[in-house]
Amino acid sequence: MASLKERLEHCVTPNALRAYLAEFISTFIFVSAAVGAAMSTQKMVHDAAPDSSSLVAVAVAHGFALFVAVYISSNVSGGHVNPAVTFGMAVGGHISIPMFIFYFISQMLGSVMACLLLRIATVSQRIPPHGMIPNEMTGFGASMLEGVMTFALVYTFYAATAETRRGGSSGAMGPLAVGLIAGANVLAARPFTGGSMNPAYSFGSALLAGTFRNQAVYWVGPFIGAAIAGILYDNVVSPKPLDAGSVDQVGA
Amino acid sequence: MASLKERLEHCVTPNALRAYLAEFISTFIFVSAAVGAAMSTQKMVHDAAPDSSSLVAVAVAHGFALFVAVYISSNVSGGHVNPAVTFGMAVGGHISIPMFIFYFISQMLGSVMACLLLRIATVSQRIPPHGMIPNEMTGFGASMLEGVMTFALVYTFYAATAETRRGGSSGAMGPLAVGLIAGANVLAARPFTGGSMNPAYSFGSALLAGTFRNQAVYWVGPFIGAAIAGILYDNVVSPKPLDAGSVDQVGA
Amino acid sequence: MASLKERLEHCVTPNALRAYLAEFISTFIFVSAAVGAAMSTQKMVHDAAPDSSSLVAVAVAHGFALFVAVYISSNVSGGHVNPAVTFGMAVGGHISIPMFIFYFISQMLGSVMACLLLRIATVSQRIPPHGMIPNEMTGFGASMLEGVMTFALVYTFYAATAETRRGGSSGAMGPLAVGLIAGANVLAARPFTGGSMNPAYSFGSALLAGTFRNQAVYWVGPFIGAAIAGILYDNVVSPKPLDAGSVDQVGA
Amino acid sequence: MASLKERLEHCVTPNALRAYLAEFISTFIFVSAAVGAAMSTQKMVHDAAPDSSSLVAVAVAHGFALFVAVYISSNVSGGHVNPAVTFGMAVGGHISIPMFIFYFISQMLGSVMACLLLRIATVSQRIPPHGMIPNEMTGFGASMLEGVMTFALVYTFYAATAETRRGGSSGAMGPLAVGLIAGANVLAARPFTGGSMNPAYSFGSALLAGTFRNQAVYWVGPFIGAAIAGILYDNVVSPKPLDAGSVDQVGA
Repeated sequence: MASLKERLEHCVTPNALRAYLAEFISTFIFVSAAVGAAMSTQKMVHDAAPDSSSLVAVAVAHGFALFVAVYISSNVSGGHVNPAVTFGMAVGGHISIPMFIFYFISQMLGSVMACLLLRIATVSQRIPPHGMIPNEMTGFGASMLEGVMTFALVYTFYAATAETRRGGSSGAMGPLAVGLIAGANVLAARPFTGGSMNPAYSFGSALLAGTFRNQAVYWVGPFIGAAIAGILYDNVVSPKPLDAGSVDQVGA
Repeated sequence: MASLKERLEHCVTPNALRAYLAEFISTFIFVSAAVGAAMSTQKMVHDAAPDSSSLVAVAVAHGFALFVAVYISSNVSGGHVNPAVTFGMAVGGHISIPMFIFYFISQMLGSVMACLLLRIATVSQRIPPHGMIPNEMTGFGASMLEGVMTFALVYTFYAATAETRRGGSSGAMGPLAVGLIAGANVLAARPFTGGSMNPAYSFGSALLAGTFRNQAVYWVGPFIGAAIAGILYDNVVSPKPLDAGSVDQVGA
Repeated sequence: MASLKERLEHCVTPNALRAYLAEFISTFIFVSAAVGAAMSTQKMVHDAAPDSSSLVAVAVAHGFALFVAVYISSNVSGGHVNPAVTFGMAVGGHISIPMFIFYFISQMLGSVMACLLLRIATVSQRIPPHGMIPNEMTGFGASMLEGVMTFALVYTFYAATAETRRGGSSGAMGPLAVGLIAGANVLAARPFTGGSMNPAYSFGSALLAGTFRNQAVYWVGPFIGAAIAGILYDNVVSPKPLDAGSVDQVGA
Repeated sequence: MASLKERLEHCVTPNALRAYLAEFISTFIFVSAAVGAAMSTQKMVHDAAPDSSSLVAVAVAHGFALFVAVYISSNVSGGHVNPAVTFGMAVGGHISIPMFIFYFISQMLGSVMACLLLRIATVSQRIPPHGMIPNEMTGFGASMLEGVMTFALVYTFYAATAETRRGGSSGAMGPLAVGLIAGANVLAARPFTGGSMNPAYSFGSALLAGTFRNQAVYWVGPFIGAAIAGILYDNVVSPKPLDAGSVDQVGA
């Protein structure tokens, strides 16, 4: 048990600073690919409505890039790449509140930086935001859908990191599982809510697109879904005493 | 060898209850993504007939989500996520009959819950059921196709869990193999029978769609295919004495 | 060094018979998914020419199913699932000539059985054969393309099995690598030669389609490509003494 | 610390020559699949503009084939398959300058050979080069986009090889991560710059297509992105003393 002072001090150690940098870079790499793919398909279909193959393109980019983003930072920062995941880990006590805030800032900056560079590089291309929710859907329905999808993502993250902590043979597959469930969920949710599951992604693309329409959907749903996943996994499904290894590794 | 009393008692231990919950959650996550993807592509093509890229979208969602669903529950419940798989494991003696029933109920509830939440969240969107079999096909042909596809799935499941039991280096790939053969088989069978291989999936989507047309196809074929796969793998292909580890782990 | 008598005897041991069965089942599962996906996309586009998303559907089914087919038989038969791979292994001395013949027969039967069951199940659906080579291409060009693609496949197979023999950390990825290079090569070669790389697949689909047009392309190219891959890998790229473990395991 | 003489001598040892051959073969296999897929989709859409499913086809071929190309050469040459990656490794001191030159030549020859064989095999088919950059984009923007994408690729390569060196459980996933981030980035960048991230690929396809339009974009951006990735990873994110194992293994 760390005292309050120690809990604040661990946020500015060299390892902690490296973890923030790793989160920034991973979120940057992930958002570059995911937003870039949405821009690519938008460029290809011109003014026409997106078709099923645009959906596949965006979902595959999302899934592959998230796998890689989690994989490359897993040993340094735990590989969250998503404020909802960090929130879910904080709810489960795997990361302290002050550190959650630093992770959060790093992820937001990474997402904004990725959208900014894409906009500069492509000159006149519009950044496609989330928030284009069909008329017949309600804000409650949209939040619920994002919540269910984020629940799946954070539950998978919990299962994957539990595997790694126990040294199970399938620990190596954890980042792939996290990435591919996100890809599958984009396929399921994109025409309805955009399939974000990631407030940093939604905020960065909305900021550069200049519209925060329906932004609340991408914060309320994911944070509630993440909290439920964390509480359920640690207390009911797999209630074994977990060593705080990954957190200590970061803050030591 | 457990006595009858012990075989009934092992169904209500804390570990067994956790296994049912894990099956419920995994089936919920899998069906959310798979049915959601079918709804997404239906929304995108409007009234037009589904095209090849809709097929890819649904198959990729199916494969990726099944990999994750098996992966996240493999250490808790064995990662069946499918009554046909549980049936195939029961035929091989890897799970007791009473426990098969509890797994079955958990999977059915998970599938129904996923379809229900998708329907609530998307408000007016129709849940697409299986059962849209082309006119020229017979019920026998459709059952046979589902049976062949489920045979491949359950045979892969057997091979994957045998690898894990023996501690082979490719044990970690087991859940990925199970997910991706399902994805490949959806690509092969969807325009003919829907490519279910999973009675819980077919039942849940049929219940929320309000039509049980051709439902028998998704029970007869898969159960027969699963039984053949289990008998063939354990008795002929790889007839080594298997430790009952995964079952004991659940019921101990 | 086994005597001639021992080399023949090892072909009828229980382990060898299990290996033939495993090759039969794996080829059956692979061809069911790959030919099934070609039938699915043909059904979806009706009389129209196949489009890029049909190409993606067939390639993904091919890649995913080949990964699984190799994975599930790797511990029993070595996971060849393809006469060209078995030929490449025979050229390198990893499997005896008599055993090559039994593997070959098992793979051919598995492919024919898969095409037969697909035809029965779908009643009126045509099995799409390879051999639809564009007019401007020559038989030499088509064979060369199939040869280059099969070279990549068999070279990957050699590298993957070498990894496993040495117990390297990436041995578990071998079957995935074999499957995905096949998927990538289908994307590269399908509109030109069909992207077979597998004489058993080409023979089975041709037999059930009732046309052996250009069949030689799928035998000459792959066998030459496979032989070059085996000779190059074992003698030049990685000329370490290999234990004959996998062969002995089968024939012992 | 090797003397200058030793640094030159290590470039012509048998192991070093094998490494060059492995790079040649891996680049050949990768470029065959990636350029082949671009030719396939071009053949399928005829004169029409490429659509989203062409994008998916090329990206999946790129990602899958790069994974395999890295995987099959990782134990022999380190699995670079890309002059930008080799440059990034040279910047970090993981490979000597003379050896960089030999790797570079091997990769260029592999790419040219792949494009040449594809052109011979398909007879009249045009090799599609990179360089078709939209009018509204500047050379600076295009270089920046290629630079950002190559940064992601080389950063992932560094993280993957660091994992392997430390014997971490996810080392086996390294080649897959390298391949799939490339696939995701092709989805993000193809309609803008072609999504190369690989000067050898761009040079080979340009040479056989007979146009070096915008070629500088595929050299300036990737080399700068690769250098930043290498410097950042080794000095800031993960500044642990690295054993020079992989280099010694090649040059010993």
